[in-house]
Amino acid sequence: MKKTIITISRQFGSGGRTVGRMVAEKLGIPFYDKELVEQVALESGFAPKFVEEHGEHSPGKSLLSYAFAPQGVPGVMKGLSTADFLWNIQCGVILQLADQGPCVIVGRNADYILKDRKDVLHVFIHADMPYRADRIVRLYGDSEKSPESRLKEKDKRRAVNYQHYTGRDWGASENYDICINTATIGVEQAAELILNLLKDE
Amino acid sequence: MKKTIITISRQFGSGGRTVGRMVAEKLGIPFYDKELVEQVALESGFAPKFVEEHGEHSPGKSLLSYAFAPQGVPGVMKGLSTADFLWNIQCGVILQLADQGPCVIVGRNADYILKDRKDVLHVFIHADMPYRADRIVRLYGDSEKSPESRLKEKDKRRAVNYQHYTGRDWGASENYDICINTATIGVEQAAELILNLLKDE
Repeated sequence: MKKTIITISRQFGSGGRTVGRMVAEKLGIPFYDKELVEQVALESGFAPKFVEEHGEHSPGKSLLSYAFAPQGVPGVMKGLSTADFLWNIQCGVILQLADQGPCVIVGRNADYILKDRKDVLHVFIHADMPYRADRIVRLYGDSEKSPESRLKEKDKRRAVNYQHYTGRDWGASENYDICINTATIGVEQAAELILNLLKDE
Repeated sequence: MKKTIITISRQFGSGGRTVGRMVAEKLGIPFYDKELVEQVALESGFAPKFVEEHGEHSPGKSLLSYAFAPQGVPGVMKGLSTADFLWNIQCGVILQLADQGPCVIVGRNADYILKDRKDVLHVFIHADMPYRADRIVRLYGDSEKSPESRLKEKDKRRAVNYQHYTGRDWGASENYDICINTATIGVEQAAELILNLLKDE
């Protein structure tokens, strides 16, 4: 079956988002990254910033209390933790976007959420620590923490979140159609490779 | 740095060996699979069949006694277990082959053994259980055990062996430049993709 939807899961700093944007632009199809966050924010009532930080990074057993929930939300959440509530909305939004047609979706465990659709190509983008450390300093500047400890923290949080909601190991090759190391293959060539795969089918 | 050596690690039944052979034939470079087993056999004094079965599949703490070692070998093994002894020879043979020039090496943890060379492309080939089960029955016929249990056993033994000698997780994408799912991408297209990657550098 022809694959027209692409999910891009990526290690922080690996350039996965850039790869996704390149693919979407080249194909002239929607690219969902921040847009997805905004949609989840809209449907949940949470602020986009909050959704962004907790959509991929918080463990299921959130320590957040309903105190953070916007007005009217606690009733809707029906006893779910904030993280579980956001997860449910995120699943709904992603399934809906896929139903609308060809697109590229970055992150948010979309690989798992869309695992049963045959028209989806699942990509994982990763790179070694030195490459990613250099890249995040260039793109986002320095911070109090070393780039390595920022990366380690992000990696850990994504892995915990992924494991919790999918029961699968983050970065295990078996969850994807293709995994690409941008430190050795390069960001542009990764995008090209994906485009070739879609073309050849 | 241009990559001229390709290591192919693969799940049993995924078609990784076929992908490797296609790449080697197309590039006109040596393909080491059985040939590697024969070289290790020659240098160790063990029978090729024994090397094949234990080179990737036995845990480090082998239960095999020296009783299985060929004449003259126990003295040379200097207290190493059979598995550790074979591992050492395997490392030496693989490093030597890589020094001789461009080639494709299938299996035998060559990805780890050659991890410090910059001229090596590390590939992992995998596929889901139904695809592999169907493939091994077509290629190797039926056996007393179900194809699924044969696959599970092989997967487990390779994972244990890999973990023991490399300290890394078998099939974790971060150990490779590229991981390809042949069940969805296809064997021929996987070979083509690798050839493209080598060409573009």
